[in-house]
Amino acid sequence: MSRLDSFIRRLEAQRACLDLAAELIRGLDGPVLELGLGNGRTYDHLRELCPDRRIYVCERSVAAHPDCVPPPEFLLLGDMRDTLRAAREWLEGRIALAHLDPASGDVAASRALAVELVPLIVPLLCQNAVLVSEPSIAAPELARLDPPEGVADGRYNLYRRITRRSSA
Amino acid sequence: MSRLDSFIRRLEAQRACLDLAAELIRGLDGPVLELGLGNGRTYDHLRELCPDRRIYVCERSVAAHPDCVPPPEFLLLGDMRDTLRAAREWLEGRIALAHLDPASGDVAASRALAVELVPLIVPLLCQNAVLVSEPSIAAPELARLDPPEGVADGRYNLYRRITRRSSA
Repeated sequence: MSRLDSFIRRLEAQRACLDLAAELIRGLDGPVLELGLGNGRTYDHLRELCPDRRIYVCERSVAAHPDCVPPPEFLLLGDMRDTLRAAREWLEGRIALAHLDPASGDVAASRALAVELVPLIVPLLCQNAVLVSEPSIAAPELARLDPPEGVADGRYNLYRRITRRSSA
Repeated sequence: MSRLDSFIRRLEAQRACLDLAAELIRGLDGPVLELGLGNGRTYDHLRELCPDRRIYVCERSVAAHPDCVPPPEFLLLGDMRDTLRAAREWLEGRIALAHLDPASGDVAASRALAVELVPLIVPLLCQNAVLVSEPSIAAPELARLDPPEGVADGRYNLYRRITRRSSA
């Protein structure tokens, strides 16, 4: 399998997971949170999937296609470790769908960043919210969901925000 | 259609055209010419498709994944307008498959560059060689081929090197 093949497979998995997540939150109120704008392709896709929801976007510095830059009032500019902490004050328990794709190209770095970010993301999610993530993650408040048809387990990941599992 | 959708569609079309081109040149001798290395994804794909052919790569400055950097003897470093002119001395009429993907993200700039490059590429192609190109191009020595199944006409393009059509 070439790098072109695996890149296409990753994008197809990403799209299938976002499409399924948008379906799964149909009955939930709440905004969307895009963690990392990048070139703005997935932001644009989320806009199409959720035309009636607010979409907040975390990004260190905007370098997206001009068509895909969120309005300034929805942009949380800066290091996500800071902006997510600050957002807790006004977003706690409100987000219905979050998408985490550090997409640094460096798998180990993406995982390490995800481990730092997950405890900051989870408190923002409402009950039954869906978190879509490229790196596989773990938290007591997240239950893994089956991937959409055609997406191999672990290629791209879906989680449901649940009540914290008892540690008993 | 979101930017994510159209990006996936473009990559799928690119892959389908490269796969078909490799099929079409099965009976032809000659090396492959990749015009633009970029991140090296399509170079990697061409390596898989044509494991027994030399693959020459034109690139101004290499920024590909380390796994996808061609051996130095196959790398034509510099402005393609210069390196293609210089390559004519030793590659004229030899290339069996060429792939042109300026992929600057700027459609008008890609087309303008293709217009400049095509007269430099065509002399390198052997009779019946296949040229795969993102921008649609025109030359009297190029006959447009049907795109592979599932790829809309004009989304990504295939040409066959023919004898120059008479201008009569």
